[in-house]
Amino acid sequence: MRNLLIVISYDGKNYHGWQVQKNAVTVQSVFQEAIQEFCGERLELKGCSRTDTGVHANTYCVGVKTSNNIPCDKLPIALNKYLPGDISALKCLEVSQDFHARYSCKGKEYVYKIWNNEVRNPFMDGYALHYWRNIEESKLDYAAKSFKGKHDFTSFCTLDKIKKVNMIREIKDFTVRRNGSIIEMKVTADGFLYNMVRIMVGTLLRVAQGKIQPENISEIIRKKDRIYAGPTAPACGLYLNKVFYEGILI
Amino acid sequence: MRNLLIVISYDGKNYHGWQVQKNAVTVQSVFQEAIQEFCGERLELKGCSRTDTGVHANTYCVGVKTSNNIPCDKLPIALNKYLPGDISALKCLEVSQDFHARYSCKGKEYVYKIWNNEVRNPFMDGYALHYWRNIEESKLDYAAKSFKGKHDFTSFCTLDKIKKVNMIREIKDFTVRRNGSIIEMKVTADGFLYNMVRIMVGTLLRVAQGKIQPENISEIIRKKDRIYAGPTAPACGLYLNKVFYEGILI
Repeated sequence: MRNLLIVISYDGKNYHGWQVQKNAVTVQSVFQEAIQEFCGERLELKGCSRTDTGVHANTYCVGVKTSNNIPCDKLPIALNKYLPGDISALKCLEVSQDFHARYSCKGKEYVYKIWNNEVRNPFMDGYALHYWRNIEESKLDYAAKSFKGKHDFTSFCTLDKIKKVNMIREIKDFTVRRNGSIIEMKVTADGFLYNMVRIMVGTLLRVAQGKIQPENISEIIRKKDRIYAGPTAPACGLYLNKVFYEGILI
Repeated sequence: MRNLLIVISYDGKNYHGWQVQKNAVTVQSVFQEAIQEFCGERLELKGCSRTDTGVHANTYCVGVKTSNNIPCDKLPIALNKYLPGDISALKCLEVSQDFHARYSCKGKEYVYKIWNNEVRNPFMDGYALHYWRNIEESKLDYAAKSFKGKHDFTSFCTLDKIKKVNMIREIKDFTVRRNGSIIEMKVTADGFLYNMVRIMVGTLLRVAQGKIQPENISEIIRKKDRIYAGPTAPACGLYLNKVFYEGILI
């Protein structure tokens, strides 16, 4: 059996996230059906992370063990014939048997997009948060720096769904940049807690509104209580952008 | 009655074009319902052009006479509350009584987008033609110049739907540019025949394939016969980009 790492990208607008669910169309269920039809065998997929309903992925990694012997460089284009237009296989790599898409992951990068204009953009509907008040991006970029480093991120985690023992994560970088009316927040870490990016974004939007000061963020982290952070920003603006593994270039 | 010119933008992916049709959801039917609810009166809309199923508009102009007295600068944001996320009112101008969104139009600019990469992009699904063979954009840019000027464009018109007496149009500019994997064809004219942009794009793609030489385009124009031009390119890549009126800045 070969162990394959398949890099895919998907527009999550019409999916209930990655993970298979009863009575809901998910990326995993559609991808599983496609790759099984393509390989002609029942396969067990390992995704690099759960993603919520409506979240997108520029890069998402799927691990699969298969007896199919199609060359890696031919797989993406061949597999794409079985996938709908909003999911695309980009790349395929053969990896060692002990590789696991989720547990071998060393870090991830997320991007959060905001359409920052008084007037709505129909092409951003479902692809960015529409925020009409002018955002001072340099202020948010400064505030975002407070998240950097190794912290207990309990204040930035929705706890009712997944209870984690270890709430410590290390944020390597967090930037806020403007490109015309699009604000792009980019955050890299060794891992993320449930809803962590969306709660950090919601907190930065409170900073934009002047309701939280950049200086307060370190304090909110220290309090380890969800109640002090901002609201969870909507899923539509969130993109899993990069996935990092040791010794594997994606 | 005020005569209003409302500038809108729409993602045409889920619509059967602009024009009201029986048993199909069109941009006009949805927009009409929204603005009537907003203004509280039955209104007659004039669109600047028909657009086909799946065609998008960065800019589209609608003319409407109304007794509603909302200030023009307030209308777009107020009206957007009645519109779905894939249609947005951008601007509103009060125009003279004899203004007609279609007949007063002095020209239009269309953009056609191609995702030119072996690997599909899920975010371009429905928003660009996926063309996997590498396109030499400078060759197409050169070929596109043959369309410039005043010509009878019978060869570049689908005749079975709308029969026009005057087949002469003047193309002011036609450029083909690359931005990463995106090829953007931009064409400006005093007006366009039915399917004209899509047939010109289909012809340029024949040039990309080496099946038509850039030098042959003038000859195809002269023949005034649809059979010599390339196929009609898919609607998904087409965007109405600009609409020109005399003395009105949109």
